[in-house]
Amino acid sequence: MEYKWSMTDDATPLGVISQPSRVAEPDEGIGVDELGLAARNHGLPLEALRYDVTPLGLHYLLIHYDIPEVDPATWRLDLTGMVRSPLSLGLAELQRRPATTVAVTLECAGNGRAQMLPRPVSQPWLNEAVGTMRWTGTPLRPLLEEAGIEPGAVDVVFTGLDHGVDRGVEQDYARSLPLAEALLDEVLLAWAVNDVPLPPQHGSPLRLVVPGWYGMAHVKWLTSIEVIDHEFDGFQQSAYRLKRGPDDPGEPVTRMEPRALIAPPGWPDFMSRARFLHPGEVLLHGRAWSGWGPVDAVEVTVDGGGTWRAAEVHAPRERWAWQRWSLPWRATEGHHVLGARATDARGHGQAGRDGWNRGGFANPRGQDLEVLVVP
Amino acid sequence: MEYKWSMTDDATPLGVISQPSRVAEPDEGIGVDELGLAARNHGLPLEALRYDVTPLGLHYLLIHYDIPEVDPATWRLDLTGMVRSPLSLGLAELQRRPATTVAVTLECAGNGRAQMLPRPVSQPWLNEAVGTMRWTGTPLRPLLEEAGIEPGAVDVVFTGLDHGVDRGVEQDYARSLPLAEALLDEVLLAWAVNDVPLPPQHGSPLRLVVPGWYGMAHVKWLTSIEVIDHEFDGFQQSAYRLKRGPDDPGEPVTRMEPRALIAPPGWPDFMSRARFLHPGEVLLHGRAWSGWGPVDAVEVTVDGGGTWRAAEVHAPRERWAWQRWSLPWRATEGHHVLGARATDARGHGQAGRDGWNRGGFANPRGQDLEVLVVP
Repeated sequence: MEYKWSMTDDATPLGVISQPSRVAEPDEGIGVDELGLAARNHGLPLEALRYDVTPLGLHYLLIHYDIPEVDPATWRLDLTGMVRSPLSLGLAELQRRPATTVAVTLECAGNGRAQMLPRPVSQPWLNEAVGTMRWTGTPLRPLLEEAGIEPGAVDVVFTGLDHGVDRGVEQDYARSLPLAEALLDEVLLAWAVNDVPLPPQHGSPLRLVVPGWYGMAHVKWLTSIEVIDHEFDGFQQSAYRLKRGPDDPGEPVTRMEPRALIAPPGWPDFMSRARFLHPGEVLLHGRAWSGWGPVDAVEVTVDGGGTWRAAEVHAPRERWAWQRWSLPWRATEGHHVLGARATDARGHGQAGRDGWNRGGFANPRGQDLEVLVVP
Repeated sequence: MEYKWSMTDDATPLGVISQPSRVAEPDEGIGVDELGLAARNHGLPLEALRYDVTPLGLHYLLIHYDIPEVDPATWRLDLTGMVRSPLSLGLAELQRRPATTVAVTLECAGNGRAQMLPRPVSQPWLNEAVGTMRWTGTPLRPLLEEAGIEPGAVDVVFTGLDHGVDRGVEQDYARSLPLAEALLDEVLLAWAVNDVPLPPQHGSPLRLVVPGWYGMAHVKWLTSIEVIDHEFDGFQQSAYRLKRGPDDPGEPVTRMEPRALIAPPGWPDFMSRARFLHPGEVLLHGRAWSGWGPVDAVEVTVDGGGTWRAAEVHAPRERWAWQRWSLPWRATEGHHVLGARATDARGHGQAGRDGWNRGGFANPRGQDLEVLVVP
């Protein structure tokens, strides 16, 4: 066993154990660090695309540090900074405010990272870092209005109780939203999911829900909201940017880019997850979403991207939830490679975009789902 | 992209996509197949060792094929074979029978597989494939007695609704218990977990719970129980054996071998999961279990196995649930490698056992938890 640090190392111990971000060598297999993340976090088993609302325990999970232990009885949320009347609220006080429940599709910004070449070394998602659950809480906007935002406010910073080190920097997890985004009606402080109190892994007792945004914005174990007069430059703000190289400042990662996924037809091989099915008519179906607006088109290939056919795209059941799509396919004996791609109401889609970036975010690449149709 | 099968392959298509079991080459990184399994299945985030009962969604999950879609309203359980009165029962009928609730520690037989050298290629667990939840259901034994077991019965075969291909063999998931084990008082047909109806991923609407046995015995989505007059030789029965080589018949995998795990102290580095903490007194703690009886001793190392100290082992809260252990440690500045090992009432332990086998089962190796104590 080789350890990451030895007493004879010259560099600072923290910097030796907590390495800078990097991309993998061309033939470098998944390392033990990446495997450790894959073993503790998890994606949506893709057959669970069948559910409009993802059952608890099947939704994807990405936890940067440890799940903190929080006592809801003593926990408080502080709202401070550039506000006329700072607030400090317990859970019961929050729960006496008007409540709403909304189905929201949440995707990890790193979904698809392990398919990128070269591969950014981090949580190695293939395609499955997504889910749609029903979040219950109180809207953020009235709370901010009650506190009274001072002129000159720029960003709203949300800090969680999860604490750790990332790329050599010790920190509480914190992310900001531009004030205008924080004031959107749909932004929620949620204490329940799928009709049960938030479980520890989803941010008990309270998390932020920012419909349409990638998962990193939905701060879990929320303990503080601070209104500030400048752009927040915290670690996670600079980590989630679309950088082409180590010195490229890049653009911030914000809303979910369009994506479509296929619920795998037939039955699987345990190890390869390739699929088997019998010849005949099969209804291909799955889900599609975009954080920028409704999905207008889903196209499906059964020949590895050679040709594409338009699927029927169902209207969203709720504004912020994924949309079902379907397409009948007459499966013929032999080997097929299935994929799907979405285009949203802006006209932005998965097609024709490379999208490689050092962090492995917002990857437009779709599935390459191997199907063997057997007699 | 290279696909697993092409139309020009000579071998049978099924056999090409679904390969025989193998061990990895010495320098072979984790492959995309193993990563696919790690991304959909998941372990217990080790900080969740703090909970006596694992919250839903944090318990480990290993699903061989797909989660089947089952309608509890039309689902039935058939009890057939060498019984005088075959039974067919709906869920409501089962739920009218006497019910009991029991906390059970469940561990995947492949826990620790990815630490083995050479590495068996399958679901690549490190240390985290475990959990303890409270299962509610009706005991199996009275049901078998009601059906009336015929003389000459040998095995009881439990079949689930999950269907797929493993190592070239298409199958419904099925496992047997020797009759004497199936008749033990603690074996349960469970329809609820942690006080909610079984979610899809844990076997809705009914699963078998065999306290003390590794996870492969606890058949999910249970649909049939058959009493037979010979030893069951189904695929999963021969897969879960301790084989030293491809032609070694090996011994069957049955009950959980002793294991202790440490709840990681301090705070983590995101990527490496190494730990940081400040100098001073820290209470190391974790869980230990054995499917063969109570754990009598837990030893802890803070110097990578150089020396070991005895921890305090708490009595089990329930017979089939893991035991808490704890040990005060005065953490001094510098680099430490922590590990723990258990010995059960039989005197069997993790120490001094290599345990390598081709399937990667029942690995006795413990954690190598890197901790950096910083000022």
